[in-house]
Amino acid sequence: MKWGWVFLGALLSLGSLSWGEKGLEIPEYDGKDRVHDLNAKNYKSVMKKYDVMVIYYHAHVENNKNAQKAFEMEELLAAQVLDDIDDEDIGFGLVDEKKDLSVAKKLGLDEVESIYIFIDNEIIEYDGELAADTLVEFLYDVIEDPVEIIDNERELKGFHNIDEDIKLVGYFKSEKSPHFIEYDDAAEEFHPFIKFFATFDPKIAKKLNMKLNEVDFYEPFMEEPVTIPGKPYTEAELVDYIEEHDRPTLRKLEPHSMYETWEDDIDGEHIVAFAEEDDPDGFEFLEILKEVARENTDNPDLSIIWIDPDDFPLLVPYWEKTFGIDLGSPQIGVVDVEDADSVWMEMDDDEDMPTADELEDWIEDVLVCEDKFEEN
Amino acid sequence: MKWGWVFLGALLSLGSLSWGEKGLEIPEYDGKDRVHDLNAKNYKSVMKKYDVMVIYYHAHVENNKNAQKAFEMEELLAAQVLDDIDDEDIGFGLVDEKKDLSVAKKLGLDEVESIYIFIDNEIIEYDGELAADTLVEFLYDVIEDPVEIIDNERELKGFHNIDEDIKLVGYFKSEKSPHFIEYDDAAEEFHPFIKFFATFDPKIAKKLNMKLNEVDFYEPFMEEPVTIPGKPYTEAELVDYIEEHDRPTLRKLEPHSMYETWEDDIDGEHIVAFAEEDDPDGFEFLEILKEVARENTDNPDLSIIWIDPDDFPLLVPYWEKTFGIDLGSPQIGVVDVEDADSVWMEMDDDEDMPTADELEDWIEDVLVCEDKFEEN
Repeated sequence: MKWGWVFLGALLSLGSLSWGEKGLEIPEYDGKDRVHDLNAKNYKSVMKKYDVMVIYYHAHVENNKNAQKAFEMEELLAAQVLDDIDDEDIGFGLVDEKKDLSVAKKLGLDEVESIYIFIDNEIIEYDGELAADTLVEFLYDVIEDPVEIIDNERELKGFHNIDEDIKLVGYFKSEKSPHFIEYDDAAEEFHPFIKFFATFDPKIAKKLNMKLNEVDFYEPFMEEPVTIPGKPYTEAELVDYIEEHDRPTLRKLEPHSMYETWEDDIDGEHIVAFAEEDDPDGFEFLEILKEVARENTDNPDLSIIWIDPDDFPLLVPYWEKTFGIDLGSPQIGVVDVEDADSVWMEMDDDEDMPTADELEDWIEDVLVCEDKFEEN
Repeated sequence: MKWGWVFLGALLSLGSLSWGEKGLEIPEYDGKDRVHDLNAKNYKSVMKKYDVMVIYYHAHVENNKNAQKAFEMEELLAAQVLDDIDDEDIGFGLVDEKKDLSVAKKLGLDEVESIYIFIDNEIIEYDGELAADTLVEFLYDVIEDPVEIIDNERELKGFHNIDEDIKLVGYFKSEKSPHFIEYDDAAEEFHPFIKFFATFDPKIAKKLNMKLNEVDFYEPFMEEPVTIPGKPYTEAELVDYIEEHDRPTLRKLEPHSMYETWEDDIDGEHIVAFAEEDDPDGFEFLEILKEVARENTDNPDLSIIWIDPDDFPLLVPYWEKTFGIDLGSPQIGVVDVEDADSVWMEMDDDEDMPTADELEDWIEDVLVCEDKFEEN
């Protein structure tokens, strides 16, 4: 009863409970426009004012009025929220595909309906959900340091807890080590899509089973990392290795990179698995899926996209209709990205889930059949 | 290389990659209104048409134009999405506080700016974020069965994986057992805020260390459950027990119930901890927090709200400004819900985190000091 008297005291002194609750006011658009319309005349001077510039390169307004208006609302909201932080100079701008083509060319914007983030001397393309909360969360990641340092065992546990992203960890003597600097430079190329960690602590390195100047590469959902060969590495060697290994055997569709992931199909097709992690059925199916992925991790041609319907509630009815499936239970199928044609594995609700071997056989079979169909 | 030839074959037959990608079209508002304006004349006939009716009981429009308009857009979007599912008859309606007071009274709507969901003979109040995606995700949970059955060991692993919600599990002979029926009826009272599971399998029950007709109660983040005393239980006994234990020592602020949680303060105050689980620092702090919670789980007057900033990106700048803190690293403080006054623990970025004992002492001290201040 350590806490009892403290709270009892507070009750007596305040006399009564308060009913006006504060602390959760979600901002609304206040009508003040904080987004710059960029053009050939103003873009240089506007961009100079900010440390980070977020540019939405959009289709010409006349062609695409609804989408444009909907997204502008999101960007206005994001701009309003971030305008409120004093120590972060974040600017927002719009570039029209037709009117401002010269600006787009000069800035190197090549994909319409994308968002480009200019920070220091890097350009980061955001190819995710056009929603203020997802964009703002992504921007928080962008402004963080590209390499996170692991100082102690609890932080190491936190590092191991991350299994949905590609992550790397390096062991270096100190922040001043030239090998760490190469690693840090490589991290900037992939930040914030790939997570980079480092430790300078021999005890942590021992727990990770790492030698000095070694970098280990973790594919999502795999139990063991791969040590990148040829240490110590230059920035270019690290970049090359990561680019060769950046399509995992099993990857999760994330709102902040959903379109980029979807565009990275294999021969026009995706193997897609729907499973809700917070549901026992979905969790079970995901475990089987991870088993298949682990057994086939060395195959560069196999890449499964796992979608947790909880992350995309507004898309669930669309997917159910388009693919003719019920997302109340787990599903796996092959989707043609050109016409959204798809084939799905039959799983009886009341039966047990397929084994990893059955799942593997099904994927193989359906791809062979589709292939034969195309040849006819 | 089991997969190699399959994909190579597909490449040859398709000839080239396709660029028009389909499968991720997020719905936009199409201009067609699917939300009913309810009034004394039409509400009965409208509600009869649907299995599930979602009613937004809003402040009178003249008084609150911006908020109303912003939210109507969200409800329109939710309505549009859910209209697309054929086998779910979900209706959306608006009730104006001033114009439709008689309807509100008849339906038992008592909190303005809340959403009420009518399903079967239950009314569920939604007191969460006014955003289409959060509301739609909540509705998916609402229409699910209140009790989820655990059939095998993988599903049991999925059950153990859920640690952020209050959950219960019961072991019964079968679905026809009168004790299961009492349990199922109790579940309906708390669904979907509290998670109910059951098993009919003696092997699973053995793994859970449970006897027949027993129900175990799991507080969030605790390692061991508490067996509800006095089995077998009636519905009323279960409801009473749960209502007595529904404020956990440590609970996570969730978008779908954020306002409800915030209103459940203790003497006008909340102990609030900010920690980003996906960040090693945040993960470390959360581990310490769980330790404090586990040591004090028997104290009914201690309740800490954990907020993961990643779940509320649009609120982060507001919190940083209101509370004068930097959410780039973990924070713990005491917040007065009436005026949002707050006191925060000083934690040095470069130092190690506090120990569980230090954290416990700090919380105790700051509550005592505040209390003395109030008395003066």
